[in-house]
Formats: sequence, structure tokens, C-alpha cells
Amino acid sequence: MRPVAITGLGKTPFGVFPDRDLRSLAAEAGRKCLENGHVPPSAVEAFYLGNFAGPSFTGQNHLAPYVGEALGLEGVPCTRFEAACASSGSAFFHAWSAVAAGVYDLVLVAGVEKMTSQPTPRVAEILASAGEVSGEMKAGATFPALFAMIARRHMHDFGTRREDLAAVAVKNHANGAKNPYAHMRKVITLEQALAGKSVAEPLTLYDCSLVSDGAAAVLLAPLERASEFTDKPVRIAGIAQTSDRVALDGKEDITTFPAVKRAGEKAYRMAGLGPREIQFAELHDCFTIAEIIALEDLGFTERGEGGRYTSAGCTLPTGARPVNASGGLKAKGHPVGATGVAQILDVALQIRGEAGAIELPRHEIGLAQNLGGSGATAVVTILMGPE
Amino acid sequence: MRPVAITGLGKTPFGVFPDRDLRSLAAEAGRKCLENGHVPPSAVEAFYLGNFAGPSFTGQNHLAPYVGEALGLEGVPCTRFEAACASSGSAFFHAWSAVAAGVYDLVLVAGVEKMTSQPTPRVAEILASAGEVSGEMKAGATFPALFAMIARRHMHDFGTRREDLAAVAVKNHANGAKNPYAHMRKVITLEQALAGKSVAEPLTLYDCSLVSDGAAAVLLAPLERASEFTDKPVRIAGIAQTSDRVALDGKEDITTFPAVKRAGEKAYRMAGLGPREIQFAELHDCFTIAEIIALEDLGFTERGEGGRYTSAGCTLPTGARPVNASGGLKAKGHPVGATGVAQILDVALQIRGEAGAIELPRHEIGLAQNLGGSGATAVVTILMGPE
Repeated sequence: MRPVAITGLGKTPFGVFPDRDLRSLAAEAGRKCLENGHVPPSAVEAFYLGNFAGPSFTGQNHLAPYVGEALGLEGVPCTRFEAACASSGSAFFHAWSAVAAGVYDLVLVAGVEKMTSQPTPRVAEILASAGEVSGEMKAGATFPALFAMIARRHMHDFGTRREDLAAVAVKNHANGAKNPYAHMRKVITLEQALAGKSVAEPLTLYDCSLVSDGAAAVLLAPLERASEFTDKPVRIAGIAQTSDRVALDGKEDITTFPAVKRAGEKAYRMAGLGPREIQFAELHDCFTIAEIIALEDLGFTERGEGGRYTSAGCTLPTGARPVNASGGLKAKGHPVGATGVAQILDVALQIRGEAGAIELPRHEIGLAQNLGGSGATAVVTILMGPE
Repeated sequence: MRPVAITGLGKTPFGVFPDRDLRSLAAEAGRKCLENGHVPPSAVEAFYLGNFAGPSFTGQNHLAPYVGEALGLEGVPCTRFEAACASSGSAFFHAWSAVAAGVYDLVLVAGVEKMTSQPTPRVAEILASAGEVSGEMKAGATFPALFAMIARRHMHDFGTRREDLAAVAVKNHANGAKNPYAHMRKVITLEQALAGKSVAEPLTLYDCSLVSDGAAAVLLAPLERASEFTDKPVRIAGIAQTSDRVALDGKEDITTFPAVKRAGEKAYRMAGLGPREIQFAELHDCFTIAEIIALEDLGFTERGEGGRYTSAGCTLPTGARPVNASGGLKAKGHPVGATGVAQILDVALQIRGEAGAIELPRHEIGLAQNLGGSGATAVVTILMGPE
């Protein structure tokens, strides 16, 4: 396997865009990415598109050639990857693997979701299809309910407090407020977060990520060719995709995601790094408790300490290990199929020194963690400069 | 790229199975395949699942880990591929590419669709999502209508007759009648086919493929390791996935599918073979006209001659180049996401000499062609013995 670099970046803002359809969002991110990576569409050898539920949200399926056509791609394999909220993380993993193994030299990876054209109950139903529909979802255990149970168990087992959950929200809102691409640019106080409308005890509105439209894209090339396309290549130092059970009720312990643990261990091993070397991360905060557990599963802090670690300020932009400087799914937004690539893109922007108002003090080695469902798919990616 | 072999096969019958859900069908095919390939689930390094519209047909998304769990796969990447009717052809292409490039040694590829639990109008609407929904589908141009236009143009330009279309149906019905795994085992006459109920002029019910439930799976390994798993390895001699425009109205000529032509040319080049060396094929007869055009696009006969070639008996099991000995999508059935892998499996069965009642006289080199939508995705695979 040869080293692979990210050589181009493109994204749309995340938000509610009544006038934009799925294709135009994906094509905008893709076009910006090709421009940023200095390649014409004809140079792209394969197109990897992550999308969770375009057919359900928009009625249109067969999305990869549909978007590829709008980008001017010419006859190359255009493939859609679906892995719930880890759809574009999974597309990125497969694209990396193809370039690393020498199948292609130049591939485009994009993620997209257009969610806001559906009424909220339908959005909830579509999101629920990422969990076990015939069992837990039928019983009313939608994602907020599942993550509420996870949060409650974490509080019970480890003494995590509602204030710790709220601290995640306060931080990510503050970060998002500085990110011009974020869906929600609104600073909140701990008091506001705690007083939020209850969604599923103990989670309030401020513990839940956003329903957003948006797209993100990156170009991949072998590291040895990266200088043809960019003077700021970002190296994929480690990466892994793993899986686990779909339903929560089959799990021995709901306060940890084995798929994330395994993906992290694999990615660290490939990179020859440990959690201590990771300077910053974009973690999958679909709910505040998910960020806390990710901190633990990835070894940034001890088991059960994620809440205290957060409340101590360790994950603030000024802390020891900043997390979700972009605002995360909480404030940047969570167009499901776009999230995996968007996280990777935001880590890459930091490494390139192009993060602008959200640039972190130390930004040489970063990690992105993308979660599907309540942990059935995980993708962990470690990025750094070209050495 | 190293040579890759198919080392295990498993499938369910195709048909209407009110008591079976998507997961049990996919798991049955997968389990049979692992047994046939003599490997435990723990040996599988990655799982590639082709599925077109499980979320729309069944309400369940995030299908790859969901099926992987039922198969006892342990934490490995489980990924769903969607490319309309070429979904599992595309999953197979990516799995081949990963094994060929040395990413994995042993991968499982499956395709599945559960269609018959929805009422017919909803099935039609879901199928339409593989075409351009905002344009042609909104205008009423569902797939039968699109392929009717294609047929009519082929008749106009090349003198193809309704009898030629019907000859495809008669042959595939006769073949399917001999295949115990086929959905429709019913011999029909040319008169019956011509007198069929009109669906979209000039296509009758007998020109259209079936709405089916079913699944198919294959195991892939490097050719050099194939003998560990089977004494009948089937070599992937050539393969390609290509793409084209989604909407028909953007095409210069609707009587040919450029994606199929390009995929065929690439696969032939990789195999070092031409159409003349292909002894038999499974072609994507979603409509009878599609089989006729595939004969031309793949170079089995001259442009415009596909209808006459068929009526002359060349594609019968006893003809010069048998096509769809399995019964094809027409009679074997067309559980959309299963079709690509099922075609490959049926070619492999012939090469292994295990096709039973549908075994062909010459069965050393075969081709499978899988089409997505009205030609926006194509996958062509050439299989042969290990030499």
C-alpha cells in the first residue's frame, strides 16, 4: 500500500437551503474541490459518493452517476456508498484503499444530504431507518431515545452529569459561531443548554445535532504525485472502517462503541501513533454523549472520564486537545451523508493552515471519527502534513 | 493487480416470498456461499453488499452491517453499494478491485432485494427512482415507457420486429422453465408473447422482467490461494464498471448504451479476449430490447442486428452463443440488487460444470453484463476456468 494524500477540498455551507437540490449541492462541493485541486473533470478516474438516504429524502436514487454527470465526469465508475451517518466516511475509506493499492491515481470523494425538504416527522422516520427498524425503532426507540439511554447509563456508571453533556453543546456552539460554513452560528450558555426543551430525558434540544442540507468533497492522489496538484498535500496516516451490531439491545455494554475502539486501534497502528500524538479531532457528536464516549473509545481520556475531561475544558480550542473546532454536527450541522467527508475536510483545512477564524494553535496531526447508526459502522481517519 | 478467483457460490431461489424478509434472504445466500467456499465467517475480511432500494422497499437502511451481523461477520468493513439495477455488479467490481490490489485476501460479495411486499404502484415508483425523477419520470416516462421508446427507435432504425423482441421472451421463458431457482418456470409460445397485454407500446407483459425477491453471494480470493477453498476456482479474466448520463433525453442515440460498450471494451482488453471468444453470456434483459441491444454493444453481432441474431436462434442454448441460459431477468427474475451477483454466479456455475439442467454445451468462457437504470451504470465481467 502506498501513501495517499488529500490534494483538493471543496464544500458548501451547511444549513437550510430551500432553493437547492441534492445534485446542485453535491456538484458545488465537487466543482470547488476540482478547482482547489487543480484538475479538470476528465482527469478523475473514479467517483465515490457517500449518501445515506437521498432516495427517501428526495425521491432520487442512482445518485452517483447523477451527480457525476453534473460534474462532467466522463464514463468513469461512479458509485454510491451507504453506511448510515458514516456513508461518506465509508466512501472515503474505499477511495483511500483504491488509491493506496494502486487501482487509481486520482479519485474524487464526495458526501451529500438534502434533508430539510421533508417535514420533521418524516425526517425522524428516515433517520430511524439507520437503526433496527423491525425491533427497537418499532418499539419507539428512535435515535434520540437510544442516545438518551446511552447517556443515562453513562451517568449511572461513571457519574457523568448533565452539566458535562451541556459543556459539549456550549463548546460546539461557540466554535460553530466562528465558522462561516456552520449551520447554526449562535453562542449559548451552560444555563441555556441545561434549560433546553427536553427531547428524550436527559437529552435536551441542545444535546442533539442539526437537520441540515450540505455537501463536501475531497480529491485523493498518491502522495508521490501530490505536488502536481497542490503545495499543501495532507497525508492519510491511518484509516480504518469497522462494523458492529445494528441494534443496541444486542450489546454487552452500551456506554462504549466497539466499532470505534477497533477502528481507532487500527488507524493508530497504521499511523504509528497513539492518542497522545493526536493534537485535535473532529468527533461524531450526533448527540453530546456521543462526543464524550468517542473521547474515551479513542483513548483521549480514560473510560468514564469523557464528561469530566470536557467540563475541565480539555476539548476547548484553547485546551489540551481541541475537539470539533468546526462546531461539529451539533453546530456546523449534520447533513448525514456529507458528515464523514466534511469532518475529514475540516481536519485537512487545519493541517493546511487554512481554517481561518477557527484555526487551532496546534494543527499538524488531526483525527476524524465518523459513526453510523448507534455504532454499527465506524470510520476513523488520522491526517497529517506530508512530513 | 493480481488475478482473482471466485471461490464460493450461494443463492436463494428467486420468487415471491411473503414470509421472508430482506435480511433472511441475504443471510441465506451468504451462509450457503461461505459453506460452499469452505470458510468460517471469521475468515471474511470485508463484506460488499449490493442493494438498490431496501430502505424504500422495506424501511430498513444501513443494510450492510445489518446483514453482516446475521452472517456472524466480526467487525470487518461492511458496506452497501447502490447503483440502481447494477448495485451488486458494482459491489462485485469494487470487491474484485480490492482483492486484485492486495487490500484483502478473502471477501464476501452479496446482492439482495425484497420487492414483493409493496403494492405494484409503489414498486413502480421505487423503480422509477433509478431514472431521472425530476425530469423524465415526472413526465410519466417510467422504465417501461423509456424502454418502449428505445425499442420503437430500434425498430425504426434497424427494421427490428416485434417478433424479434418476442423471441427473446420465448427463449428466456424456455430457459427459466428448466432452472429450479427461477421465479417463473413457464414455457410460452411466440404467439402468446405477441398477444401479451400491452404495457407500453410496443412492449407487452412478456417483454418486461419480473418483480422478485431474492439474493445471491460469491466469495473472492486471490487466484494463487483459490485452491485452499475450492477445487473449482473461476477466474475473473476481465471486468469494468463505467457510467453515463442518467436521463435518456441527454443521449445522442438511444439505441446503444455507451456505458456498456465502454465496459465491454475495457473488460475484453483486460481479458485479452474479443467477443468471438465468449462462449455464452448472462445479459441484462430488464426488457427484451435491452438483451438485443446488449448483443450489439458487446460486439456479439453487428449494430442493428441483435433482433435478427436472436430470431435466427443464435442465442438459444443450442445456438452459436447462448444468452441467459438461466432464464435471465425475464424468467429467472429480477430482485434488482441481487441481479448483478446472480448473473456472475450463474456464469460461474456453468464454468464449474454445476449448472445441472441448464448446463450449456460449451461453458469455459462466459460474460455477465449488468445495467443500471437506462444505461447510467454498466458492469461487464468475463469469467473463465483457472487455465
